[in-house]
Amino acid sequence: MLSGKKRGLQSIEFLQAPIISSSASVAGPLESKSSWAEDFDWIMEDYLLGESSWERTETKVLQQVIQIALDKQQLSFEDIEVFLAGDLLDQIISSNYTARELKTPFLGLYGACSTMAEAILIGAMLVEGGFFTRLVAAAGSHHYTAERQFRFPTEQGVQPAPYSQWTATAAGALVLEAQGNGPRVSSITIGRIVDMNQKDANNLGAAMAPAAADTIHRHFLDLNRDSDYYDLVVTGDLGLVGQDLLEELFVQQGVVPKPNISDCGVLLYDGIPEVNAGGSGCGCSACMLCGPLLKKMYRGDLQRLLFVATGALMSPTSTNQGESIPGIAHAVAIEI
Amino acid sequence: MLSGKKRGLQSIEFLQAPIISSSASVAGPLESKSSWAEDFDWIMEDYLLGESSWERTETKVLQQVIQIALDKQQLSFEDIEVFLAGDLLDQIISSNYTARELKTPFLGLYGACSTMAEAILIGAMLVEGGFFTRLVAAAGSHHYTAERQFRFPTEQGVQPAPYSQWTATAAGALVLEAQGNGPRVSSITIGRIVDMNQKDANNLGAAMAPAAADTIHRHFLDLNRDSDYYDLVVTGDLGLVGQDLLEELFVQQGVVPKPNISDCGVLLYDGIPEVNAGGSGCGCSACMLCGPLLKKMYRGDLQRLLFVATGALMSPTSTNQGESIPGIAHAVAIEI
Repeated sequence: MLSGKKRGLQSIEFLQAPIISSSASVAGPLESKSSWAEDFDWIMEDYLLGESSWERTETKVLQQVIQIALDKQQLSFEDIEVFLAGDLLDQIISSNYTARELKTPFLGLYGACSTMAEAILIGAMLVEGGFFTRLVAAAGSHHYTAERQFRFPTEQGVQPAPYSQWTATAAGALVLEAQGNGPRVSSITIGRIVDMNQKDANNLGAAMAPAAADTIHRHFLDLNRDSDYYDLVVTGDLGLVGQDLLEELFVQQGVVPKPNISDCGVLLYDGIPEVNAGGSGCGCSACMLCGPLLKKMYRGDLQRLLFVATGALMSPTSTNQGESIPGIAHAVAIEI
Repeated sequence: MLSGKKRGLQSIEFLQAPIISSSASVAGPLESKSSWAEDFDWIMEDYLLGESSWERTETKVLQQVIQIALDKQQLSFEDIEVFLAGDLLDQIISSNYTARELKTPFLGLYGACSTMAEAILIGAMLVEGGFFTRLVAAAGSHHYTAERQFRFPTEQGVQPAPYSQWTATAAGALVLEAQGNGPRVSSITIGRIVDMNQKDANNLGAAMAPAAADTIHRHFLDLNRDSDYYDLVVTGDLGLVGQDLLEELFVQQGVVPKPNISDCGVLLYDGIPEVNAGGSGCGCSACMLCGPLLKKMYRGDLQRLLFVATGALMSPTSTNQGESIPGIAHAVAIEI
């Protein structure tokens, strides 16, 4: 079996094109007000779901979204050959405890909000390479676990900056298979770190926009394409501030911003005006991809999607030590 | 080009067998007293190396060990197609800042002390699958960054438990290539989470030993081998407590403990009696593999090595919330 080939400096074009045979999304109570809500598979009724901590809820949600994705294809945990996942929590505990329940071989990843794309692109290479025939990629986040870890004790009720993004309570999971029906992962571009010396941990969109511009530019160069090739290029999660910066960077690069470019952090909070600058968190782009966007593809309303998940790779320690925020973006092209 | 095949439930046997064309190891001031010290490429003269924080030093050391590995083959950062790495720090900041300097496509991983094996086994599949011809896998840890993050403020000088392992100040890096000279990654076994409800974060060996036993047992089953196939089966890092437990588990499984089984956490601190229970930390097994063990292979003194890196996947938050510690172990067979 032939497998995909490297194109240019950072991209792989697949020959077999692994299939997304199933996907599922979960959204939190606030996110249920999104104008996309009807495309989520499950809406959490509250932030705890009967657990004793938000962290345990985050794990429960990640398990649940995988269960829903598997149920759609009448699959069980035993049918999964390997599980790739990550989350925002220190030492990715939500993913570790989820992997404990799945009992499958597990590869833990950390790419902040780019994790879903990282999991899909590694998973796609492992399927295309002939190593596995079926695997699960997943990512999730919870507003209250992330806020108290990255910013302030949640009970303190600190007023967020108007340009700071809202960490989504959301999760997404998908099943990648060598054979079957569904949209195909046709090519990928692995991101590199871009750091423009942005140090404000309340403005992650600004830290990630240059990485998104770099990866999208590289994807088009490597595969000799432009944004016309895609019905939609969707970043995740730049929010409103980062999205504006991305447009400026496109103008600087001589790329005319196209109407077919959007952002998961903006889309998820469409219809929720109290979230000023849009969303972020691993679960934001995972939920938008595995819910509304892939559902559009399954329905045939979207033929070619470029999913560009972006991550701000700082920690509270690095921020306190005055370090700037490294950004990364990974791109996954999905086509039917 | 044909690529490797899945064997049994968790293993892959490679047909091309990616080559470890170069490797390098760095050890800290305490670790310089190890009886293996002459096989380290560089010994840190102190814990800061002129940096303003231990975290920055950890990044510097990770960059340096990669530089040394590349220098041995007259390679530069531009020759690397993709970089896989992880570390113990929250949000793997050492790896992120190292990736910023390398400027190559980057895949961030988190597997605690199993990270080096995770990076090698993903890297080996990416090379074997024909996606890349040359990549770098690396991991590192620093005693003082890990201690203050996982346990107590370092200045507090808390007396460690006699069975607690010493987080190594050490790092290792290797270059994986599709072609060239050197030992080959011949097969891998991806670990699954094993959690025996151990909750004492001072006793990581006990949390990881069942995972090591599970993965080694699975490796032998999947590939129809036993430990006689290997000159050395080396876990990392169980320390003395975990190593004893592993032997007990082998007896329970009906596997006779063999003299060719050892542990990186025990080996690294051989000759350093003040470290009671042996070492741990991503850098411990990475340094032992990329230094003494691979040097033995390059010299022809070791023909077949099974490297089984183990990770304790808890966080201070999960421990404080009363969760048990999930263990994982990934196995990489290296042969000349």
